[in-house]
Amino acid sequence: MSESDKIGIYHFVAEPFHVDFTGRLTMGVLGNHLLNCAGFHSTDRGFGIATLNEDNYTWVLSRLAIELDEMPYQYENFTVWTWVENVYRLFTDRNFAILNKDGKKIGYARSIWAMININTRKPADLLALHGGSIVDYVCGEPCPIEKPSRIKVASTKSLGEVKARYSDIDINGHVNSVRYIEHILDLFPIEFYREKRIRRFEIAYITESYYGDELTFCRDEVGDGAYDIEVRKNGQEVVCRSKVIFTAQ
Amino acid sequence: MSESDKIGIYHFVAEPFHVDFTGRLTMGVLGNHLLNCAGFHSTDRGFGIATLNEDNYTWVLSRLAIELDEMPYQYENFTVWTWVENVYRLFTDRNFAILNKDGKKIGYARSIWAMININTRKPADLLALHGGSIVDYVCGEPCPIEKPSRIKVASTKSLGEVKARYSDIDINGHVNSVRYIEHILDLFPIEFYREKRIRRFEIAYITESYYGDELTFCRDEVGDGAYDIEVRKNGQEVVCRSKVIFTAQ
Repeated sequence: MSESDKIGIYHFVAEPFHVDFTGRLTMGVLGNHLLNCAGFHSTDRGFGIATLNEDNYTWVLSRLAIELDEMPYQYENFTVWTWVENVYRLFTDRNFAILNKDGKKIGYARSIWAMININTRKPADLLALHGGSIVDYVCGEPCPIEKPSRIKVASTKSLGEVKARYSDIDINGHVNSVRYIEHILDLFPIEFYREKRIRRFEIAYITESYYGDELTFCRDEVGDGAYDIEVRKNGQEVVCRSKVIFTAQ
Repeated sequence: MSESDKIGIYHFVAEPFHVDFTGRLTMGVLGNHLLNCAGFHSTDRGFGIATLNEDNYTWVLSRLAIELDEMPYQYENFTVWTWVENVYRLFTDRNFAILNKDGKKIGYARSIWAMININTRKPADLLALHGGSIVDYVCGEPCPIEKPSRIKVASTKSLGEVKARYSDIDINGHVNSVRYIEHILDLFPIEFYREKRIRRFEIAYITESYYGDELTFCRDEVGDGAYDIEVRKNGQEVVCRSKVIFTAQ
């Protein structure tokens, strides 16, 4: 199989309700597109959710890191490439490139996924899945951004509370992965986005939250425009952690 | 021009982060798609926002009413048709049909738009725009749902408050039209959506709200599964009104 067969290529346009007040695509929408591309790519190659579900397995997103030089502007076309970088027994690394309307690479993303058994919720052996055929798709395409980091948050003072409501909940009954991105970015006042842009966004999903859960958000400012955020549910369990790095526009 | 040239036809798939916990496309996402289709259709025919902006005009959505027998299910393809029903001096009626994966019509929508001058914010004469060429696109395709109604809300007790945050704001600096739909539907507990579905959703946009505005939501139950909702900003001005009609699934 050639390297180009291993890369999934998907085209988008920055829709008007998907851009923020600066006219640039929001990080939540970009995250949504990346996760959809992961789904398209794995489905087209026979290891998508629908195929897995038949065997009682499903993909679970563990980490996502996105780093960009610029975001597509309203009505601009852009393209996402995605491919599998590594397959381990319990995890797989899936990478992405984001290309602007002229085909120039403007950003990259890294994601880490596990597969679990739907009934037992236990991790499954990726190398045993369909005779390990996912390994055939491993691709050497470069992804020149850092791997997702370990995020630690010291602050215990919540900056805000969000009760998980109808619109937050996905088909699995969980708060959906994209909504966390939006809630986290809403912690920052709009002035932040007027003067700065997000250079890097990271999120590590730790446990699920559900309808009615009270989400609280603690944040450490860690210097050089970076912020570490921890989301807890009902004042207790950590749901996810995120790192947001702003830079001058 | 034939009737088929007048109708814009656009294809979609119900993405996983665009469906609710029942696996059906959310009304907010459908509203987003309809408004995008309105944009594609008018742009392709020379009266889109980009063309208008050059002349300092823009479209403003005044009302939207959506009525459906069913919503597309996760991963299902669906299609939106849109066309212009009427053009008056200050308003135009644009209608939509929603077709399921098998091409069967599963719903319709009606919308009313005005055009304003960007500088003066005053309404513009649609019949004078580009020599009135928009009239050439008026189409007799049937849209067998009721026109948007006059919504009146008696209750003055707020069911909830939402402060408009970064993710709510569009390129014009306003809370975006789709976010109101989500905030309104979040007023209903999830049990509502477990037992019922939305048969008809209406919204009338009255004035804009901005970052930091405190939105409050008052609701009248008006019988037969119908609810009228009024959204105010900062305890004063009415921002929009909505009617949601639930029916048994």
